[in-house]
This record gives sequence, structure tokens and C-alpha cells, in this order.
Amino acid sequence: MIYEILKEDIRTKARLGKLKTPHGEVKTPVFMPVGTQGAIKTLSPEEVEEVGAEIILSNTYHLFLRPGYEIIEKAGGLHSFMRWNRPILTDSGGYQVFSLARLRKIEEEGIHFNSHIDGTRYFYTPELVIEIQRALGSDIVMPLDICLGYGASYWEAKEALEITMRWLKRSLDYKNKNGRKDQILFGIIQGGFYRELRKKAVEEMVGLDLEGFALGGISVGEPKEMMYEITDYTLDLLPKNKPRYLMGVGAPEDLVIGVSMGIDMFDCVLPTRLARHGVFYTSFGRRNIKNAQYKEDFSPLEENCDCYTCKRFSKAYIRHLFLQHETFSYRLLSIHNLRFLFRLMGRIRISIQEGRLDEFRKEFLSNYLRNDRENRLEKEEIWSRLLI
Amino acid sequence: MIYEILKEDIRTKARLGKLKTPHGEVKTPVFMPVGTQGAIKTLSPEEVEEVGAEIILSNTYHLFLRPGYEIIEKAGGLHSFMRWNRPILTDSGGYQVFSLARLRKIEEEGIHFNSHIDGTRYFYTPELVIEIQRALGSDIVMPLDICLGYGASYWEAKEALEITMRWLKRSLDYKNKNGRKDQILFGIIQGGFYRELRKKAVEEMVGLDLEGFALGGISVGEPKEMMYEITDYTLDLLPKNKPRYLMGVGAPEDLVIGVSMGIDMFDCVLPTRLARHGVFYTSFGRRNIKNAQYKEDFSPLEENCDCYTCKRFSKAYIRHLFLQHETFSYRLLSIHNLRFLFRLMGRIRISIQEGRLDEFRKEFLSNYLRNDRENRLEKEEIWSRLLI
Repeated sequence: MIYEILKEDIRTKARLGKLKTPHGEVKTPVFMPVGTQGAIKTLSPEEVEEVGAEIILSNTYHLFLRPGYEIIEKAGGLHSFMRWNRPILTDSGGYQVFSLARLRKIEEEGIHFNSHIDGTRYFYTPELVIEIQRALGSDIVMPLDICLGYGASYWEAKEALEITMRWLKRSLDYKNKNGRKDQILFGIIQGGFYRELRKKAVEEMVGLDLEGFALGGISVGEPKEMMYEITDYTLDLLPKNKPRYLMGVGAPEDLVIGVSMGIDMFDCVLPTRLARHGVFYTSFGRRNIKNAQYKEDFSPLEENCDCYTCKRFSKAYIRHLFLQHETFSYRLLSIHNLRFLFRLMGRIRISIQEGRLDEFRKEFLSNYLRNDRENRLEKEEIWSRLLI
Repeated sequence: MIYEILKEDIRTKARLGKLKTPHGEVKTPVFMPVGTQGAIKTLSPEEVEEVGAEIILSNTYHLFLRPGYEIIEKAGGLHSFMRWNRPILTDSGGYQVFSLARLRKIEEEGIHFNSHIDGTRYFYTPELVIEIQRALGSDIVMPLDICLGYGASYWEAKEALEITMRWLKRSLDYKNKNGRKDQILFGIIQGGFYRELRKKAVEEMVGLDLEGFALGGISVGEPKEMMYEITDYTLDLLPKNKPRYLMGVGAPEDLVIGVSMGIDMFDCVLPTRLARHGVFYTSFGRRNIKNAQYKEDFSPLEENCDCYTCKRFSKAYIRHLFLQHETFSYRLLSIHNLRFLFRLMGRIRISIQEGRLDEFRKEFLSNYLRNDRENRLEKEEIWSRLLI
């Protein structure tokens, strides 16, 4: 067993656990920063480790296109290529290929698509996706799936799920015959926002030889309440002894709420992407460094934050660099945002340990959502309901 | 005296020395990386220190426009604002204002100019420039000057020099009355490529209360031989007991040749700017990481280089990141290029110490210029003459 539950919360469905991978153990619940191209944008591997990351995510699709998995294999695998010696999870690229819209064509055998970079035509099959990840040497690998957007009809979602399930079995077969024994394969649960389909997916999947479950097709444009609702519903169907990973989700409120529902793993580009737009996290919601109020503010991004950025630089300095398009400011904000999430995950884990996650969740959400200054209206609408 | 000669070379005009500033001593000859906006592009202060920088340069003009010197003064000065606790030299902005071309108007009192950012109209005077640098708290300050481009006529150069000399005296007066006693003021020698004017500038300047001499109006579009010729000529006129700074110059060959002529200080944006274009230094000339030959090259940028980049990452990885526009690659290349220059300066200083700079110079130039792969033709033309 790669996953071990250390403690279950009583008043929520949260679990404290650990995940064993070829590159070491990971404390769960865990947040995984995203290194799409084999680097967490603007950061060195040492900085990623220093902010508290134990496992990172990278993308099979992007690395397949550039630089090509043969090159990474020759470099000794992705860990060696990018100089990250802790666990790596690689996403299959189902979501990326799905995003190509008119540039891709799905058939039973696999997906034809044109590269978003230069239009080159490729044929992606479940077997190829496992083979690429074998070459990359990731610790946790994902099968090719069909990820639909919000608004897909029941029949579309049903058909996509059926193909996804057949592909999952092909992925398992290929991995058993040609794959690496030490790589961990998760199943991706699809089914859109239809309970019946999610249930069907789980029922078929629990019989398979999978080491964890990922919830896919979530955070694809739906209202947040629907995301929470289908996540909660699906999680309740899953066996407890395997890790659950909510793909592509990771706003601070989602981490707290997702953990309470029983999620063990998250990944999200938000902390680093927001940083490049000047947005930084605080316990009282998001702020934007461009704001004129920070012009002469010589205090750190957040008082009491222990990150490199907050220990050394002022908002006034970071604002100046950001407005002058100095990339060092993106690094400084990325470090802070990631550290914010890792400190949050640390507090979540301690709260589970101490049996007070429910209080922590209420307190955090109240402070964070009520005072958020970015997308305020969108949030206003949901926070009152979340805080009931 | 802020400058002390430790050793003079016999076969060249090189000097080994040390420069005392309020923020510590600097070993000369020295290269100063450029932090135009109050940050060396893509790098943290710790990285700048780690590559070997003892003093950096920043720009009065840029900091005056953004974020404004009042803000930096409130932050406790530039050292505190940008978290660099070693010496800082600030350029006056004469060169930047000169580059504004039609956006500026020079008169006896000062320079009217429109900001290159938003067109706001400013009036820059010698007194204001010293006042800004007082607020910034730089260790070495530069007076406002008029810097002409290559091709200026004798009469233009003569008039510009005369104004520059009157401004220098006003700068000195202002500094003596209102400035900081511990700040070091250099004079900037102008006069274009006319020996008579350079001589006149030096003769007037040696009588003034200046602690060092900068050679300005050099590297402004002239052929390299003219640059070396006028530098060599001017240096021979200067007293030996004060430091000499060649402004805006710092290609590897210029460092070796400039030191041999008696230059003690250099600054240049090239190492970091080239990095952002994929160019990296090696002992055998410049290379470009985009080159297809590095696609599967798992060796470091340069064998035996001790920089962070070379100790950890391969050309294949850096090339991949660079082609995907990952800013981490600009950082990796900037670190290497700066470290290359600091290692070169270290070898230059040891060569002076050991009395073999002349041999080192020949050997270095031969390897570097003969094998340079960027702008090969331009170089071919001059290296044969330089190597005579």
C-alpha cells in the first residue's frame, strides 16, 4: 500500500496520511505546485523546496512536445533533467489536449491533435501516454482521459466516460506489460456533473488495480458550489484506503473545503500565475501589488510570514519592480504565494491532528473570503453560503 | 584617500588596488553589474553576491522617474530598499538623458526632458542630480554630464565639454554645501574622440576636489580601436593615485585590454542582457543556447565553471527552458555570465599580482576572440590587429 491514514477527523471527512513514492514520502493532505515545462515558473528547485513543496506536478503533454521525452530519458529522467529529487506526479495531458478544441479529434484508438506550438500532427494513445511517463520516470503517473468542460450534456459525458474507462484499462494493461513496477498509476474519475455517471465511474474503477483516485473534469468553468457538490458526492463513494487527488484545484478556500471533504492531494497553477499578475495571498484574502496604497508601504507582503520575500523585501520595493516589469518581482510574489499555501496546508494538517479542523476552516474562510479584494463580487455571492 | 595602489604591473599599465567606500572595501580592478531599476535583472541580491560582485551600479535617472527618490529615501536609502549592503555607485543619468534625443533640451542651467515612460516633463540640474544621489545614499556618486554619441563634431564636443565642466563645478559646490561628506564624487571626463579636448578636460579636472575619474562618452558607437585609442591616451594624462572608471564598458576583451591600460573600474549591462538573448560566455568566446547542437548536450555551459548554473544544470535543460520562454533560464544564464566575468577579473588580479598579465592577456584574447561564435565577422576584423 502506498497510502497510509494516520488520523481521521471526527467532525469533517478530512484524513491525515502519508503517501509513499519511489522518491520519498509525502505528508497528506498535500498541495503540488505546477512545473508545466519542467520548472516551476520563475523558481529554482531549491526555492521550491524551501517554500515547503514535497511533491510537484509536471505535464506529459508539454514535455512530449518540448523538449521531447526521448531527450529527458537520455538525461536520466525528469528528476535528473530538472534537478528535483523529490516525488513528481505527471498529468497525462487529457486536459491540455481537450483545451485544443478544434485542433483535436477523438476516436476509440486515441486522440489526433495538432501541436499548439507549430501545428505538427500527433497521435496520442493511452499506451503512448504511459510510455512517455515511463521515460520521464515520474513517481505518480496519470492515464489518458477525456476531460469535458462545464455544460457538456449527459450523453456527451456518458460517452466520454466510457472511452475514458476503456482507455484506463488499456493504460493498466500497457503499464503491467511494459511499464515500470515502481510507478504509481491513479485512475481519473470523469462523468461531468452527473451523479449517476460519477457513481458508475467509481464502481468500475474500484475493481481495478489502481493505487489512487483522481477527480477529473472539475474546475472546468462550473459554479464553485457545483464543484464542491460533485466532489463531495464522488468522494463519499470511494474506498478510504487509497489517496484522492482533486485535479487542477487549489485556491486557498478550495484547499480548506476540499480537505474537509476528504481530498488528500491538490495541484494548481494559481499561486504562480497570480504572482505574475501582481496578486498575492494574505490571510485576509488576495491583494494586488499594483495598488497605489502600497507605494510607500515598507512592510512585508504579510506580517508574520516566514518566506524569503517577506523576511527581506517591502511591498514598496516589490511594487516598484513589478511596475517596471522586473522578473525578480514575479519570483518574489511566487515564493510568497506558494509559501502561503504550504503554511496553510501545514495548519490544516495540524488542525486535523488536533481534531479542530472544523473551527479552523470556519475561521480561515471567514477571514479570507470576507476580506478578499480580487474578484470581490464573485466571492461575495458564495462566501455567505459557504459560511453557513 | 579612498584608493590605494597595492601593486603596479611592469610590462603593462595595470594596477592592483583597493577602493574604500562607506559600505566596505572593493578589490580593483573591479567589474560592476548593472541594476538599472534597483535590481540586477532576474537576480536576487544573494545571487549577485554569490557570483562575486563587490559593488554594483544603479541609475539615478531611472530611480528618479520610478519609484522616485523620495520613496527610496523614506525606505532608508537604496541599500535598504533593494537589500544590498555592499557599495553602490550611481550613474548620473547623463547618458540616459542624452539617449532621449528629441525628447530633451540642454541649456546652461540644466536639461529639460520628457520621461521615456509617460512623457512627463522634468528639469534636471547638476544640483538636483547630486541631491537625488544624496537621498539614494549611494557610495560613489556621479555628476550630471553631457554625453555625445560617436560622430559629434569638434565644436559640438567642445561646447558639451565646457558645459560638463561648469556643471561639474556646480555639482562639487552643491555637494560641499548640502551633500553627504561620506559620499565619493567622481569627475566624468568628456571630449569625444578629440585628444585636445580630453587633455583639456583632464587638466581642468585634476585641480578639483575629486576622488576619482570616470571616462565618459566612450562605447557610444565608435569602432573598438578608437575606443581603445582614446581610453589609452586619456589614462596616460591622469594622476596615478586616484581610481579610473571606464563607463558602460565590459565585454570580456574590453576588461582585459582596459585593465592593461590602467582602468580600475568597469560596468556593463552586457552579461545580463546577452543572457536574456540566450548568449553565454565561455573561455572560447560567446555561444547561443538556442543552437540546435545543444539539444542533447547534457554538459554544463562551461566545463570547470563553479557557478550555480554549471554545477547543476545541463545545456539541454537550459536550452529547453529558454525556448519555452521560462524566465528561470534568463536567471541561469545571467548567473553564469556574471560569474564568468568575475572569474575573469579574479584571474586578471592574480596575473597582476604575479607579474604575468601580459601573457594572460595574450592567451585569453587569443582563445576568446578567435573562437567567438556571435558577431564573428565584426570580431574577425579586429582580433588580428589586437593580437599583434
